[in-house]
Amino acid sequence: MQTILYAIPAFGLVALLYTAIKSAWVTRQDPGDLKMSTIARYIAEGAMAFLKAEYKVLAYFAIIASIFLFYLGYVGEKSSPIIVVAFLIGAVFSALAGFIGMRIATKANVRTAQAARTSLSKALNVSFTGGAVMGMGVAGLAVLGLGSLFIAFYYWFVQRAGASASSEQMEVALEVLTGFSLGAESIALFARVGGGIYTKAADVGADLVGKVEAGIPEDDPRNPATIADNVGDNVGDVAGMGADLFGSYVATILATMVLGREITVTDNFGGLSPIILPMLIAGLGILFSMIGTLFVRVKEGGNVQAALNMGNWSSVALTAVASYFVIDWLMPETLTLRGYAFTSMGIFWAVIIGLVVGTLISIITEYYTAMGKKPVNSIVQQSSTGAATNIIAGLSVGMMSTALPIIVLAAGIVFSYAVAGLYGVAIAAAGMMATTAMQLAIDAFGPIADNAGGIAEMSELPKEVRERTDILDAVGNTTAATGKGFAIASAALTSLALFAAFVGIAGITTIDLYKAPVLAGLFIGGMIPFVFSALAISAVGRAAMAMVQEVRRQFREIPGIMEGTGKPEYDKCVAISTKAAIREMMLPGAIALIVPILVGFGLRGVFEEVSSAEILGGVLAGVTVAGVLMAIFQSNAGGAWDNAKKSFEKGVLINGVMEYKGSEPHKASVTGDTVGDPFKDTSGPSMNILIKLMSIVSLVIAPHIAVRENPQPAPENRLDLEGAAEKVEKVAPETTVHYLATQK
Amino acid sequence: MQTILYAIPAFGLVALLYTAIKSAWVTRQDPGDLKMSTIARYIAEGAMAFLKAEYKVLAYFAIIASIFLFYLGYVGEKSSPIIVVAFLIGAVFSALAGFIGMRIATKANVRTAQAARTSLSKALNVSFTGGAVMGMGVAGLAVLGLGSLFIAFYYWFVQRAGASASSEQMEVALEVLTGFSLGAESIALFARVGGGIYTKAADVGADLVGKVEAGIPEDDPRNPATIADNVGDNVGDVAGMGADLFGSYVATILATMVLGREITVTDNFGGLSPIILPMLIAGLGILFSMIGTLFVRVKEGGNVQAALNMGNWSSVALTAVASYFVIDWLMPETLTLRGYAFTSMGIFWAVIIGLVVGTLISIITEYYTAMGKKPVNSIVQQSSTGAATNIIAGLSVGMMSTALPIIVLAAGIVFSYAVAGLYGVAIAAAGMMATTAMQLAIDAFGPIADNAGGIAEMSELPKEVRERTDILDAVGNTTAATGKGFAIASAALTSLALFAAFVGIAGITTIDLYKAPVLAGLFIGGMIPFVFSALAISAVGRAAMAMVQEVRRQFREIPGIMEGTGKPEYDKCVAISTKAAIREMMLPGAIALIVPILVGFGLRGVFEEVSSAEILGGVLAGVTVAGVLMAIFQSNAGGAWDNAKKSFEKGVLINGVMEYKGSEPHKASVTGDTVGDPFKDTSGPSMNILIKLMSIVSLVIAPHIAVRENPQPAPENRLDLEGAAEKVEKVAPETTVHYLATQK
Repeated sequence: MQTILYAIPAFGLVALLYTAIKSAWVTRQDPGDLKMSTIARYIAEGAMAFLKAEYKVLAYFAIIASIFLFYLGYVGEKSSPIIVVAFLIGAVFSALAGFIGMRIATKANVRTAQAARTSLSKALNVSFTGGAVMGMGVAGLAVLGLGSLFIAFYYWFVQRAGASASSEQMEVALEVLTGFSLGAESIALFARVGGGIYTKAADVGADLVGKVEAGIPEDDPRNPATIADNVGDNVGDVAGMGADLFGSYVATILATMVLGREITVTDNFGGLSPIILPMLIAGLGILFSMIGTLFVRVKEGGNVQAALNMGNWSSVALTAVASYFVIDWLMPETLTLRGYAFTSMGIFWAVIIGLVVGTLISIITEYYTAMGKKPVNSIVQQSSTGAATNIIAGLSVGMMSTALPIIVLAAGIVFSYAVAGLYGVAIAAAGMMATTAMQLAIDAFGPIADNAGGIAEMSELPKEVRERTDILDAVGNTTAATGKGFAIASAALTSLALFAAFVGIAGITTIDLYKAPVLAGLFIGGMIPFVFSALAISAVGRAAMAMVQEVRRQFREIPGIMEGTGKPEYDKCVAISTKAAIREMMLPGAIALIVPILVGFGLRGVFEEVSSAEILGGVLAGVTVAGVLMAIFQSNAGGAWDNAKKSFEKGVLINGVMEYKGSEPHKASVTGDTVGDPFKDTSGPSMNILIKLMSIVSLVIAPHIAVRENPQPAPENRLDLEGAAEKVEKVAPETTVHYLATQK
Repeated sequence: MQTILYAIPAFGLVALLYTAIKSAWVTRQDPGDLKMSTIARYIAEGAMAFLKAEYKVLAYFAIIASIFLFYLGYVGEKSSPIIVVAFLIGAVFSALAGFIGMRIATKANVRTAQAARTSLSKALNVSFTGGAVMGMGVAGLAVLGLGSLFIAFYYWFVQRAGASASSEQMEVALEVLTGFSLGAESIALFARVGGGIYTKAADVGADLVGKVEAGIPEDDPRNPATIADNVGDNVGDVAGMGADLFGSYVATILATMVLGREITVTDNFGGLSPIILPMLIAGLGILFSMIGTLFVRVKEGGNVQAALNMGNWSSVALTAVASYFVIDWLMPETLTLRGYAFTSMGIFWAVIIGLVVGTLISIITEYYTAMGKKPVNSIVQQSSTGAATNIIAGLSVGMMSTALPIIVLAAGIVFSYAVAGLYGVAIAAAGMMATTAMQLAIDAFGPIADNAGGIAEMSELPKEVRERTDILDAVGNTTAATGKGFAIASAALTSLALFAAFVGIAGITTIDLYKAPVLAGLFIGGMIPFVFSALAISAVGRAAMAMVQEVRRQFREIPGIMEGTGKPEYDKCVAISTKAAIREMMLPGAIALIVPILVGFGLRGVFEEVSSAEILGGVLAGVTVAGVLMAIFQSNAGGAWDNAKKSFEKGVLINGVMEYKGSEPHKASVTGDTVGDPFKDTSGPSMNILIKLMSIVSLVIAPHIAVRENPQPAPENRLDLEGAAEKVEKVAPETTVHYLATQK
């Protein structure tokens, strides 16, 4: 066993140690007075109630998926039932990442509010440390999980058989490792979409009954749905984003490893260098993200955004520099993947390209959604003639905002391919994701600061406290927008890396649109993001109605609730919202999981000369292209509507007149913001996971639908092929034959 | 020369004769009293003013495009400057088709209103005959133009050289003929998008100033923009749809011809049968459309929809039966295209598949946009909580409505390919388009009836007149929805046929998404419909503002305008709207025309192993998939919003309460309808032309970017290759060499 391998889980352990220490530090901070901590406790309880309800449902899903995976691993060539272990660990780690994030966010929010009583510097320190706990936790779990499972599977499948790093045994080891990614990403789907439906249902429900019917202010603790609303912010912005990036991070590394196996090299690491490089870069990214957090410091009256940028850029720059030396040290000078030759320096340039693409897309996203910039201003101006023109303007901004990111992405694909082939496309994604820990720290800081502001308001803290949290919150809005851009860019590159890995495992050499079934697959794939979005958007509407019913019931039935003497049943609202969210998620979730299986297995042997794997490739291409476009369109339209509405808070000049909150144009902008809510927080971000999950499912089933040069060997012969897997007990010829028969 | 060839333009002449006779009949009908004819005259004058302004601008465009085409034809191998002639005839014929349609529609509207004084039967007769004049005119011009140009080019390029039907000379002849399609489609782009911006700008502008500011009723002749509004209905619904289908009709036939050339057959028609089959089927479709019009008859109190269906189905069924015999008579029993063998009966089945796909997509479109059906009802119900939920519901319906049409389309691609290869995909499109004349007759009948109702209202005709026109108008709303579905389906299949033809001419054998630049092209292509839609939608907003300024000026400056003694300058409004529409069209139009040229020529030789033609193929696939999706999404969302609003006219039950016009939910639905206006009448339908035009531009430049087995011969040698073209004068080596040099 190569010693270097052990470095990888070690990076993960260091990150988790950091998480534990910093988490303890945050917990030690002052949670403020009784009123503050009571509100915070309601939110924390609600968040845990949500997680409990969600994980219960997901447990059933995990069991069903495990049975299917066990069956696939059992009957399939180049696979193993051990994939179930990887799958379950991936699912549990993803859930754990969400748990860690939610837990720290619901602690840091109130402590940030309290810290803001002292100074801006201290408030930033608490909120950002909360974010860093989340970021390091996610990255640490990912690297620990991937690294130790790889060591185990490498030993079990490859080393025991004395096989090489580019052997078929290694293909099996990596196929089994894909289960980890599948587990992570399918939990992420529920976390992101369920969370998205949840938060918007609670938001709309709380407003409709509380503000409109009962006449109590927003964020009033007497409203049973208010806590759900605040929980929702954590569920959507913290846990959802965390699960999303955890999934991307794992999938990217894995796809690069799968592609790396196809590169036969002679190096000092048993030929493993192309496989372990992405894990090492990820480990370095964690290390330098930790160092980067040291730069996030601000003085009273200082620039918070600059402090965050300093932290971000230093970690990015250090990782880039370090990856130069790692690549130089680890990799042989020239490599060849699928006939495309490139150098180790090409790999380094691919890392740089990934970093540049991620940065550019973040900047473009900020431009299209930032207050004071032309796109948001155009929406503000068109609010003067009512809600209809406001909506038209927002839709137009969202659609237009697809242009530049797609051009950057297309250029990134072409250039990273040029410098290092398909391995370059994958490593560009890996490079971009290397500092995920820092990205998440910055992303999670936003909702923590936002919550802190809310708690400060509800607890009637002094004015300067609110002013300090407002500074943090404003920066948080910007980081939320750039974070979404980063998430989209990473999902797109990750999907492409998975796509390339799928092609290799599935044994196809082209995905040729010239073939009618592949073109038909492209159409079907392109349609899925539209249908998925439609389901997610309409689910928010239905779930909000369920919330309204429950809040009305509590107001009616709980004595003393309006006087503040009866305690509202927050958990009921949380459960209602969760239940509705999970139920509404079934159909879209099923589409993402089942379509690749239907196409991959259902179309096997249906068309002469066109394999089902190639058709599935067409479907994936369609999903990826339409999914990325719909993600950008919906996220940016929603973000722009939101900030158009916020522009009225400071007043805007329309046709020579200053318009403020409460004016007719402002009311029109509120309508736009409401339309944008499910766009930016439910359907838009779900697109990321949709495209990744469909690619991962395809990658998992790839060996089972693979096009082989020779027909599949009879079950008896197969054992020899799989030597190392030692599935001595598993030969059940009648089952296997039946299975094969149904495929023809 | 094969005698059968002369039958084709003969079909066209018969159709034009029909047009002339029926047009004269409509003109002879009673135009009603002075008030009616005055209103009608205003509309007719406005329509002509629009055409005049539009055609003036388009003349400049035609000149610039002609210069570029002349240059391409001059320097290009396998091309000829004669393409300019085809281009100009195509452009003029397309303009002529729009002219005929507008002219008859603005005559038939008032005469339908007058006829409705007598009976429903007479009103249907006048309005449907008006539609039929348009339909036959469009189809007749298309078949006459294509048929006679083909005869001319066949003689000039092929017969004089004694070359065969599948020779390179024939390739040149068809390449030159593509110019006709390019001319038709580029005029269609302006007619559809310019018209769409125009009509919505006038609509919004007239309402904002007339109803809101001046307090005069809708459709009041004192409002200078009212006529523009009524003109807009004709411009958008009659001329726009006509130009769109004229373009699809021509492009489909042409694409099938180009593919047909690649099939080498021994038949009784000099090997021409696969080339002339689509023209013959189109000719038959005209004949049976004429016969079908005889079935469109209704008694007082009868079912108008049933009468239209009777006419439609009889023409479709007769054409299907006739095409069986024509195929059996014309085609050899077995054919092979690009290695795919199929039978003549396979071709017949492809025709049937095309008809089924078109019908199914029309039915699905109707379901998603019809009053009383579940999708529209869901929007109605969600209007109860305001404009935001109404908008969310409509967006959701629009996105969801992409699922079934795409599945039908994908199945159509696969099945038509299975029965007759790529020729089958093209002939399916041709089969679907065969009865375009009847489709257009039914489509154009709607806006004529709509206008008739408006004229009846404005002229204060007796109540029963309005009741009769209302019956026709209601049916017209349904035919408008199904017509849009048909237009989208035809555009999609047409684009695929063009796509297949492009691949052949460009000399590529794969469009492989596995290659990074092709995948990047797919992303770029997919983004274009989003950007195009954004431009079209925001153009409506800007153009409406210009209209508002002009109407305000006239109210201020023209004495006696409000008393009815001063005549409003309708033509100024028309010119303003036209000018704005044309100006706003420049950028989206340029994108459609220039992107294929940039990709095709700009990326020549940039990538080793990946030709620019293959990348352009990726771009086209992206445009087609995203364009079809955005077309369905936007058209259906807009249609559903419209009918959700209309549902309130008869009253709807929401939460147990009947809600009518003027209620809060109704007001919310009006906002949705306004958002839907540019969706369904501007950006949505423009997608059809966008995808077709980009495919045609690619087909035109295909021979110039083609991948050749051998490098391009030096200019001196080329003359031999082109023998028949006799470009004796044209050798200008220094220019040519310079041109070639810039390409490397």
